Amino acid sequence: MPEAVVTMDGWYCLHDFRTLDWTAWKYASEEERGEAVSEFRELIGQWEHTEENKEGSHALYTIVGQKADFMMMILRPTMEELNEIETAFNKTKLAEFTTPAYSYVSVVELSNYMGSANEEDPEIQARLRPKLPKWNHICFYPMDKRRQGNDNWYVLEKDERAKLMYAHGMTGRQYAGKIRQIITGSIGFDDWEWGVTLFAHDVLQFKKLVYEMRFDEVTSRYGDFGSFYVGNLLKPEAVDQFLKI
Amino acid sequence: MPEAVVTMDGWYCLHDFRTLDWTAWKYASEEERGEAVSEFRELIGQWEHTEENKEGSHALYTIVGQKADFMMMILRPTMEELNEIETAFNKTKLAEFTTPAYSYVSVVELSNYMGSANEEDPEIQARLRPKLPKWNHICFYPMDKRRQGNDNWYVLEKDERAKLMYAHGMTGRQYAGKIRQIITGSIGFDDWEWGVTLFAHDVLQFKKLVYEMRFDEVTSRYGDFGSFYVGNLLKPEAVDQFLKI
Amino acid sequence: MPEAVVTMDGWYCLHDFRTLDWTAWKYASEEERGEAVSEFRELIGQWEHTEENKEGSHALYTIVGQKADFMMMILRPTMEELNEIETAFNKTKLAEFTTPAYSYVSVVELSNYMGSANEEDPEIQARLRPKLPKWNHICFYPMDKRRQGNDNWYVLEKDERAKLMYAHGMTGRQYAGKIRQIITGSIGFDDWEWGVTLFAHDVLQFKKLVYEMRFDEVTSRYGDFGSFYVGNLLKPEAVDQFLKI
Amino acid sequence: MPEAVVTMDGWYCLHDFRTLDWTAWKYASEEERGEAVSEFRELIGQWEHTEENKEGSHALYTIVGQKADFMMMILRPTMEELNEIETAFNKTKLAEFTTPAYSYVSVVELSNYMGSANEEDPEIQARLRPKLPKWNHICFYPMDKRRQGNDNWYVLEKDERAKLMYAHGMTGRQYAGKIRQIITGSIGFDDWEWGVTLFAHDVLQFKKLVYEMRFDEVTSRYGDFGSFYVGNLLKPEAVDQFLKI
Amino acid sequence: MPEAVVTMDGWYCLHDFRTLDWTAWKYASEEERGEAVSEFRELIGQWEHTEENKEGSHALYTIVGQKADFMMMILRPTMEELNEIETAFNKTKLAEFTTPAYSYVSVVELSNYMGSANEEDPEIQARLRPKLPKWNHICFYPMDKRRQGNDNWYVLEKDERAKLMYAHGMTGRQYAGKIRQIITGSIGFDDWEWGVTLFAHDVLQFKKLVYEMRFDEVTSRYGDFGSFYVGNLLKPEAVDQFLKI
Repeated sequence: MPEAVVTMDGWYCLHDFRTLDWTAWKYASEEERGEAVSEFRELIGQWEHTEENKEGSHALYTIVGQKADFMMMILRPTMEELNEIETAFNKTKLAEFTTPAYSYVSVVELSNYMGSANEEDPEIQARLRPKLPKWNHICFYPMDKRRQGNDNWYVLEKDERAKLMYAHGMTGRQYAGKIRQIITGSIGFDDWEWGVTLFAHDVLQFKKLVYEMRFDEVTSRYGDFGSFYVGNLLKPEAVDQFLKI
Repeated sequence: MPEAVVTMDGWYCLHDFRTLDWTAWKYASEEERGEAVSEFRELIGQWEHTEENKEGSHALYTIVGQKADFMMMILRPTMEELNEIETAFNKTKLAEFTTPAYSYVSVVELSNYMGSANEEDPEIQARLRPKLPKWNHICFYPMDKRRQGNDNWYVLEKDERAKLMYAHGMTGRQYAGKIRQIITGSIGFDDWEWGVTLFAHDVLQFKKLVYEMRFDEVTSRYGDFGSFYVGNLLKPEAVDQFLKI
Repeated sequence: MPEAVVTMDGWYCLHDFRTLDWTAWKYASEEERGEAVSEFRELIGQWEHTEENKEGSHALYTIVGQKADFMMMILRPTMEELNEIETAFNKTKLAEFTTPAYSYVSVVELSNYMGSANEEDPEIQARLRPKLPKWNHICFYPMDKRRQGNDNWYVLEKDERAKLMYAHGMTGRQYAGKIRQIITGSIGFDDWEWGVTLFAHDVLQFKKLVYEMRFDEVTSRYGDFGSFYVGNLLKPEAVDQFLKI
Repeated sequence: MPEAVVTMDGWYCLHDFRTLDWTAWKYASEEERGEAVSEFRELIGQWEHTEENKEGSHALYTIVGQKADFMMMILRPTMEELNEIETAFNKTKLAEFTTPAYSYVSVVELSNYMGSANEEDPEIQARLRPKLPKWNHICFYPMDKRRQGNDNWYVLEKDERAKLMYAHGMTGRQYAGKIRQIITGSIGFDDWEWGVTLFAHDVLQFKKLVYEMRFDEVTSRYGDFGSFYVGNLLKPEAVDQFLKI
Repeated sequence: MPEAVVTMDGWYCLHDFRTLDWTAWKYASEEERGEAVSEFRELIGQWEHTEENKEGSHALYTIVGQKADFMMMILRPTMEELNEIETAFNKTKLAEFTTPAYSYVSVVELSNYMGSANEEDPEIQARLRPKLPKWNHICFYPMDKRRQGNDNWYVLEKDERAKLMYAHGMTGRQYAGKIRQIITGSIGFDDWEWGVTLFAHDVLQFKKLVYEMRFDEVTSRYGDFGSFYVGNLLKPEAVDQFLKI
């Protein structure tokens, strides 16, 4: 049976997409809305503090289209902390005006096909416990490696998989500086095998990258995709404006 | 690995389908309904202003059947503007009486299989930043190119794809003057790879075109389709009548 | 590429399935319920008038099981009229007590594989603009012709398709007098390619016909089906009884 | 094209699964709950009367897990009666506290692969119009015969199908006395082709039977299954206890 | 036809996932919330008593992400007891603030491919009627053995299946002490064929195990998976804190 590849795993990750009940929000009193925004910004303030201490990271984006109104991406050293943050948010005033839209549970992952990476290496450490960039746009989608008839990733030998992943990586490398990519593994944690989170200054780069990669054999024959979410950076100081009635 | 085709991309596009809560609408006061309609028409007025300035375009159609009551199709130069328009609508009075039915995020796209098109060409520019026609009927559906067993678009060589796309284009050309087609790319933005929006004077032409195209090899072997939405033009001055109780 | 078959198209068609909120209905006042029923019967009266004038047709059936409580099937010369009828129903009192369950948008269609039918023929005209029978039972289901691996309808030559359709028609012909069948095309209008509406005096004939047809090669290899809805005739004068609390 | 098998058809069948709104139920007054239970038991009383007169049969079971709280299985000579019973239940007090969870419309069916069964035979008649056993447990699931690539039931010759069905029947025969099986046909009536309802004294026998049958070629290659529902007998006199707050 | 493997079956099992309505919970009075928590802890107390008497077992975990807020896993000797516990929970105060998120009905199962296990063996008995570990983390997912084209588990001979299962077991054995696995069979009881429940001290072990197993032929070619749920131990004494507003 083919050999699995050893992965290196870092911080746990929760993608939490929320839909706002705009009608209820509008009918809340100005005071209630003010309180909700303050409390939410306070929560973000705590997350920023954690980020400064390098004990986690987070991102906050509005989502385009009806799939959700905004999303929070949270990285923490333990699964318990993700659960606590989620519950803390659920207990906020703002949460009273939101409904869950989608979530994804995973862990930052680097696969080590060449076996050449050293987990102790500070650069590797930084990639496993990353500070999420505050770039203009985010793109998230979950994916599987296909196991279907003749297109079955998991029956390929490791060398073959390494070769295909290497070519795939070369495609990605052309987008260095334009796109930052965080791969999170979710086998055993959520419904797809991996989550892909991309950050870009120019949103069009998402389309260019994902389109170009679709022709990589690792994708054309072995990639299955879930829903795609695309969003715009929501700076903490813009939360008021976003929620202003 | 097969070579991807360079695409030319224009305005970003949001298809926003809404369902009206007719019961709540009826129980609103005449004054409240009047206010909601005025505000909505004001919003449309702003969109018309943008369209006149060639800084975007839009379309407004009622949808036949229960999938939605009406849809707004919005084109803008940036993803942020789409998000702002969506949020602005969500904050309107009318939105209190609607629920999201479906949405689609994409960008106007021209593929350049021959490599002969010049993005600077004014005609190309006009197609990338189009003024949407105010024709009687609209048809929208998302689609993928299939990657399944022996029917895998993304493993075909570029020449083969170009040949199949050319034949497909020839089918479409027979409908010139009867149907206007806007292709929007959504790889990396939404759940399908492309959105197809058709406009027609005579709604039957949609069926004729889509049926005929189904026999093109590019469709019969490589086309996968999502839901189809068909609608009738809703002129701003007919909004009152449509919503009249 | 295989040649498409020219179809003849008649009246546009809306299947509109509704679920009743029985609890809200019971808690309405007797007066309110009476008003709702009267108004609905008035609407049916208008449809009957249209039918007498041969400007459309309609059918009204209760649905067995939880998929819906009743369905309205409406035929009209234009897509706009379908939209108007739907909106008119949504504005009725009765609609306040219903929720949408399913709908289907299509157009009455005759395919002309032999090319021998003449659209001007009065018999053809009658089939394209039919008066729906008021038989005891209705059965509705949407369907596709399959495009999957070796079972791909749209890559078959026209002759082969004609032969298979002919055999299929022969199966149907054995049910003459027992079942009336209305085929409506929905490519470009709704999520499946065709809608099939059957009428019967004896509901068991639906099962016999559909079962027997499943062995026709056109079905066994090329037929994909959506949900099946089966119902009993709801005469206008029985509406009161059906809705009586 | 392969020959269809003539089926013998008996009573029509409605499986009606309901979920209780426990919160609303608890907040109803004791009097209201008492009224609801009495009325429901009265309805069951009518069904029992019908069963005694051999004009139908029924079964009442609680369902384990969140798919539903209880289910009613109703057999009657006509489709109209099923519709009437369903509507009668919808008009009861108890129905105000339930929501539809799932339903299935079918007709008791015996397939006659050997052509040796005589529909006039009293034993056959009894199986077509059965009195449902009041055994401890029920199991319901809908199923299709597969039509996929090389595994296509409907292209097999009748002899081959008969042989496979015979072997399948032999597996079932080992469970005589432990499991009673009612096959209902639903082609043309509901979304799957058949419904299977099993009754057992010992719930574990369901698992043993269905597991063993999975290795029968008729299942391993040609069986596709929907959701499985398993439940415990709810005797009329235990309804009070079940619903007691 | 291939021979089925005799399974040994133990306690019945209900996985019950619930979502909390945090808004309603917050708006309940402190007294009401206190009452709800007390009553729930009392229920847990009864389950603990049952566990001490070796008449069943249970586990209580919070779930990470939006799929659910918490889950209860209940083992009991009979299906009736599962139903009673579910109904008892539905009648609690806390249940008024929860909505069903997902459930799974199954029975603890050991397959006996070698035929060497003796059901009377006390060790086997202990595995069939296990005391669930109170380890830090839980992972649950349902699965099927695939029946698709050339990848059809149920047409393999018993020897071949035994060989593949043995290799699979060897992979699992490497996680002894790190992961405890409870396999429950659900053929005839729920929508998938098996439920897999894993317990771990270190949540990352779930990912490592499930990933490594994906390369076992029994999984790569024959495994189909449902949703994955991952959670953190919720000790009875931590319920107050979890639900504290």
